[in-house]
Amino acid sequence: MCGTKQAAINGHSSSSSHSCIEAKENGVTKKLPSDSVINLDHGDPKMFESYWRRMGDNCAVVITGWQSLSYFSDITSLCWFLEPELAEEVRRLHRLVGNAVTEDRHIVVGTGSTQLFQAALYALSSPDADEPMSVVSAAPYYSSYPTLTEFLRSRLYRWAGDAHGFDGDKPYIELVTSPNNPDGFTRKTVINRRGGKVVYDLAYYWPQYTPITIQADHDLMLFTVSKSTGHAGSRIGWALVKDKEVAKKMTKFIELNTIGVSKDSQVRAAKLLRAVSDSCKQLGSQGSVNFFDNFRRLMINRWECLRNVIRGNDLFTLPEYPKEFCNFAGEFTEAHPAFAWLKFKEEIKDSESFLRAHKILTRSGKHFGVNKTYVRISMLDREENFEILLERLSKISAKQQENGPSLRAS
Amino acid sequence: MCGTKQAAINGHSSSSSHSCIEAKENGVTKKLPSDSVINLDHGDPKMFESYWRRMGDNCAVVITGWQSLSYFSDITSLCWFLEPELAEEVRRLHRLVGNAVTEDRHIVVGTGSTQLFQAALYALSSPDADEPMSVVSAAPYYSSYPTLTEFLRSRLYRWAGDAHGFDGDKPYIELVTSPNNPDGFTRKTVINRRGGKVVYDLAYYWPQYTPITIQADHDLMLFTVSKSTGHAGSRIGWALVKDKEVAKKMTKFIELNTIGVSKDSQVRAAKLLRAVSDSCKQLGSQGSVNFFDNFRRLMINRWECLRNVIRGNDLFTLPEYPKEFCNFAGEFTEAHPAFAWLKFKEEIKDSESFLRAHKILTRSGKHFGVNKTYVRISMLDREENFEILLERLSKISAKQQENGPSLRAS
Repeated sequence: MCGTKQAAINGHSSSSSHSCIEAKENGVTKKLPSDSVINLDHGDPKMFESYWRRMGDNCAVVITGWQSLSYFSDITSLCWFLEPELAEEVRRLHRLVGNAVTEDRHIVVGTGSTQLFQAALYALSSPDADEPMSVVSAAPYYSSYPTLTEFLRSRLYRWAGDAHGFDGDKPYIELVTSPNNPDGFTRKTVINRRGGKVVYDLAYYWPQYTPITIQADHDLMLFTVSKSTGHAGSRIGWALVKDKEVAKKMTKFIELNTIGVSKDSQVRAAKLLRAVSDSCKQLGSQGSVNFFDNFRRLMINRWECLRNVIRGNDLFTLPEYPKEFCNFAGEFTEAHPAFAWLKFKEEIKDSESFLRAHKILTRSGKHFGVNKTYVRISMLDREENFEILLERLSKISAKQQENGPSLRAS
Repeated sequence: MCGTKQAAINGHSSSSSHSCIEAKENGVTKKLPSDSVINLDHGDPKMFESYWRRMGDNCAVVITGWQSLSYFSDITSLCWFLEPELAEEVRRLHRLVGNAVTEDRHIVVGTGSTQLFQAALYALSSPDADEPMSVVSAAPYYSSYPTLTEFLRSRLYRWAGDAHGFDGDKPYIELVTSPNNPDGFTRKTVINRRGGKVVYDLAYYWPQYTPITIQADHDLMLFTVSKSTGHAGSRIGWALVKDKEVAKKMTKFIELNTIGVSKDSQVRAAKLLRAVSDSCKQLGSQGSVNFFDNFRRLMINRWECLRNVIRGNDLFTLPEYPKEFCNFAGEFTEAHPAFAWLKFKEEIKDSESFLRAHKILTRSGKHFGVNKTYVRISMLDREENFEILLERLSKISAKQQENGPSLRAS
């Protein structure tokens, strides 16, 4: 059974029945009623918990009361609040995975890549410009980009929508998320005009989600532990920045916005990244499992299960990803994204509402600059919730096959 | 000797000579050349390190690899990223110290109080207003307020300078820092117009700095561990907010800005606040020293030393603070602020440059909305640096007494 196999990969077993499903919450196993709402709106990476649990105390970090009192981490560094050990582990992991160039790059740490995104807008726009810099991204784009760009009504930059429709001749910032959130495809810039600035959000450019085909070498690249190791609660991201002045301005933004970034979380993130690197080189404790192999297998399995459920119905479809050679895995593989980008047939006018009626919370395509026949569904929740998702989609699918094409949200 | 007494209070001894001074940096004792620059520009609270070192492993926090992966802390709470144990310890400590009302208040956690300040501006201004909301504070005001208000060129709010000079009839936000940064005086609003919004920054309203005369009961109050326990590197602050809608908007700001606040640091801050509360109730480990008594004594001693050095010269003066009854200490006491607000006589046109020439980095009055005869000097650095400060001020003072009033920066 699909669910059982996944649970085994994930290192613990779960049983599901019609009356209840077991779920672990804060380490406590609870009975979830099988009719409870599952929230797959956010990309909350709880899938990673069981791996870290198996890794045991070796990955625990101890922070004494007298550590990290100062605002400063390294006053000789351009990014004075960056813990040197985090910088070291970031470079080591990128070298090992081969997903990004770190040589001759400045590392700027942020309170998640969300803060770094805002730091990048600040750094790439100009206070002396006549008008706000246009910020664009090709639809479907990450749903938070418009709000993050607009919420403070800055005169430095403004949201200008889908990059495909951008026809101004003024300076612009293009946001490229690759693999893309929500749809998982590899992305490039679409505007390619001289003087354009580009921010590459590479949060999902890790072997568990997508084949690592090149060592990314862009001017400004964003990463985060939330999607690499799964530690979203730590709020740690980093930028790899080619230009010194841009890195300085990003650092200035974070200085003004939050006077640096939690040292506790930086120290912890360093330890976790080290554990991931060690696991790849089998340097970890006995029984340590290669992090990326583990999660590649898990994602492959989840996607296989999801495609099995979808297969044979014409109510909704999933994107198909090309097979490409992954330099890290050493084999041809397709993407297994962190989100399922589900397209419903046109008669389901509002697929988010449709799924909500089936107690599955997702995010509508309208938030990503496309229409409401699309929804984004997190593939990173705990095993139990993923199984409920499969069960419910399976029921919807079966019902559709019974009832034919006139199915409406019940 | 002043220095020796302080070092004893601080729990370790230091020796100073003309050739070198011992300084602890990251737990390693280093020889500081006695002519090295001391940086007292920032309020970096390294003074607190030795206390926490003495508290030992009881205050260490252990965070396992599988903790805190989720973005969410408590989805039933208005501030969904606030760790419940931090909320509990915040309420407990305020009750114990008696410095702020927490009953019927919403707690919003932030990445330091700097982020909360920006969240407050966002929450108190209106996106529908015809023009940006004026933000004011009575000079001398915290040097970062103008920049924090202006750096993103928001259309929501704008810096409008000294509250004393504010004569608009439009809505405004008044920032009240009490005790005030830089000068240490207790503050109230100066505008007092109907419809005015007020943000109270109470970062320094703790017994080590000032007598606790009332339980503060304002609509919006900001606190931070940076100045209470001394853990600036953790970047944890909290707001106590009366109005639910304001608390919601502040939470929204932090959601957009950084998708919450480091859980690692919240868990750690909870442990440290608990240790402080326990120390006050003598519930801690054997040998645990009452936190506030310890730092009250230390600050009293530092101020006594500083005033001794200043006494008898007419080059610079310090503010005098009234004696008031401190409900926490149960005695009359004056303020012993985190910063010395030094006023030079008029012929020293630029006192920051003057002190820089004596290898003391400070912050000029011009950043606080007043003239350059003032400087702000941190009183929270490690013992060794504080001793160097005393030594250098003492020399300047002696030289001035020799040379008379014509002294210039050497």
